[in-house]
Amino acid sequence: MSVAASTPEAWATLSLKALPHDALVALLRAFGTPDAVLSATRAELGAVVPDAIAARVAEPVDETSLALTRTWLADPAHEIIAWDNTDYPRALLDLGYAPLALFFVGRRELLNRPALAIVGSRNATAQGALDAQAFAKALSDAGLTIVSGLAVGIDAAAHEGALEGLGSTLAVVGTGLDRVYPARNRELAHRIAAHGGLISEFPPGTPPKAMNFPRRNRLISGLARGVLVVEAALLSGSLVTARHAGEQGREVFASPGSIHSPLSKGCHKLIREGAKLVETAQDILGELGMAAPEGGVAKHAASPATDAEAALLDALGGDCVGVDTLVTRTGMTSAIVMAALTGLELSGQLAAIPGGLWQRLHRT
Amino acid sequence: MSVAASTPEAWATLSLKALPHDALVALLRAFGTPDAVLSATRAELGAVVPDAIAARVAEPVDETSLALTRTWLADPAHEIIAWDNTDYPRALLDLGYAPLALFFVGRRELLNRPALAIVGSRNATAQGALDAQAFAKALSDAGLTIVSGLAVGIDAAAHEGALEGLGSTLAVVGTGLDRVYPARNRELAHRIAAHGGLISEFPPGTPPKAMNFPRRNRLISGLARGVLVVEAALLSGSLVTARHAGEQGREVFASPGSIHSPLSKGCHKLIREGAKLVETAQDILGELGMAAPEGGVAKHAASPATDAEAALLDALGGDCVGVDTLVTRTGMTSAIVMAALTGLELSGQLAAIPGGLWQRLHRT
Repeated sequence: MSVAASTPEAWATLSLKALPHDALVALLRAFGTPDAVLSATRAELGAVVPDAIAARVAEPVDETSLALTRTWLADPAHEIIAWDNTDYPRALLDLGYAPLALFFVGRRELLNRPALAIVGSRNATAQGALDAQAFAKALSDAGLTIVSGLAVGIDAAAHEGALEGLGSTLAVVGTGLDRVYPARNRELAHRIAAHGGLISEFPPGTPPKAMNFPRRNRLISGLARGVLVVEAALLSGSLVTARHAGEQGREVFASPGSIHSPLSKGCHKLIREGAKLVETAQDILGELGMAAPEGGVAKHAASPATDAEAALLDALGGDCVGVDTLVTRTGMTSAIVMAALTGLELSGQLAAIPGGLWQRLHRT
Repeated sequence: MSVAASTPEAWATLSLKALPHDALVALLRAFGTPDAVLSATRAELGAVVPDAIAARVAEPVDETSLALTRTWLADPAHEIIAWDNTDYPRALLDLGYAPLALFFVGRRELLNRPALAIVGSRNATAQGALDAQAFAKALSDAGLTIVSGLAVGIDAAAHEGALEGLGSTLAVVGTGLDRVYPARNRELAHRIAAHGGLISEFPPGTPPKAMNFPRRNRLISGLARGVLVVEAALLSGSLVTARHAGEQGREVFASPGSIHSPLSKGCHKLIREGAKLVETAQDILGELGMAAPEGGVAKHAASPATDAEAALLDALGGDCVGVDTLVTRTGMTSAIVMAALTGLELSGQLAAIPGGLWQRLHRT
């Protein structure tokens, strides 16, 4: 039985065989290292695991996959973090399905920090995305690493918010790390690689496959102390992630919304099934037993910079309003109204909506 | 000890003394009827209840109050429903504070039908009022009597919805029934008196007093199997009603909303504390173990009557939109758009909002 440390490539090779978790545990217990497992005879393997699995181990792996992995590993920024690695996320080890090796780019010290997952709809509303971003920023400021799935919509907003905060973010993807999907998030993925971490249990070259996303979701919740769902339809992958979280003993949080919004129905279902209803980041920190940072959860809500902007926000109220109406309501000239609208839009306090109208945005 | 049945006036007179519940039970157990209690000597009374209470019973009641009650009772539509009355609401009897006498106008058979209370903010949003009305109508259709407090906002909408449905409504007020408060609901109160029931535990002439409203709230929840809260601020009488409901072993239901709406915070607090989150009337019927009526809870949502109306609703989406934008989006002439807008407004499918804009209304 070999006692030499195994190379990343050996971990990757064993990982490519996609063996069941229990078989991997048995093999490594018996042979000590991936190299030893890979060089064992069929008979030696058959003494430890069922014959069908012994056959899979003894078979050579797909050379194309192995070549892609070798190429990917040649970049010094690219790492394999396997079971023998002290940076391997301890949160995953007790789950019974910790991937043998994680393909990783980024700051490995983030893998063992307290984390919270934020997930939700790809078709998020503008307000839902703002909410996810605000939750992520406040929780990042409070010291939590925000885990999400790098999808468009809520996921992307959560990563963005986390990067804006004092903490950071981990993106768990369902493809090879050489194939960031969706393409729209490529620029975000680069920033996450530089300031946070990108994780996949799938080897380089793995394309987007529907069957891999549930495993990605299981990893997202597994890495975190809890999962916050912001906007999810009734049939939504986010609900699967929340179910995993429950099974993994993680907290499940959901933010509610209008009873008429299809994107709130998933969150409402979760709350009915026992998820904690949350309105603020403080609600989550309280449940996790974490104190809010000095002065409470940081609120960086922009405030009107001028009297004209303040008057305009008052005049807007909760309505969708055009410039003419604002001129009437405020008694200001249209030039002043236009200038104030621009200032408020730049500071993210309102948004233009179709029809030349303006709507106030609420930020937590 | 007298065995003669007591007159409504005797019940009213004893009621005017505002004695503690336990003392009333002891006195009626000892003397048999209100007349007998009222004609007992101070010494006889003192043998049954503490001396201070005996003194209050022996004192003459305020003549003005008694005269107001007599005048009110002279109207044959006005009734006193006291503990001896078979129509007295059985739901109240086990609570330990059932009022000795209820002042009542309306259909007494409603007092012992399965009921659900719907309460909420006086400052309801247009959508909140629509929601309360839709819940009330659907639950009324399903055979529940809707109980509320005849306040403006959610209460009024709940009574209206209940009257539209196949069932009916009970309004519990915190003033004398000769002083319906607020005045804005006088016309609604008349319709409730004709088709439902108006209830007060306070004698005629009682003006609105802050101290009486919590007792009104306790009666609202006491009469019902459960309480639905639709829109309530954090410091809200509706939350008191919900707390009473919990203490009385009634179900508490709350409908959620935006995390940015102050009028949802009370509902969210209730849900966190264990209230059932509900999106539809069916959710409530399910919890109460009541089947929905044939074909599910009746949905009477208006639908677009013409192709132009349907196209317009599509073009509106979730935005607040002006006529010009609708002309652009639909390619219809402004005359056709205007006609369709009018049709949709008349059927309650959209509402004009400030600035010449239109917004779609969601009805459950």
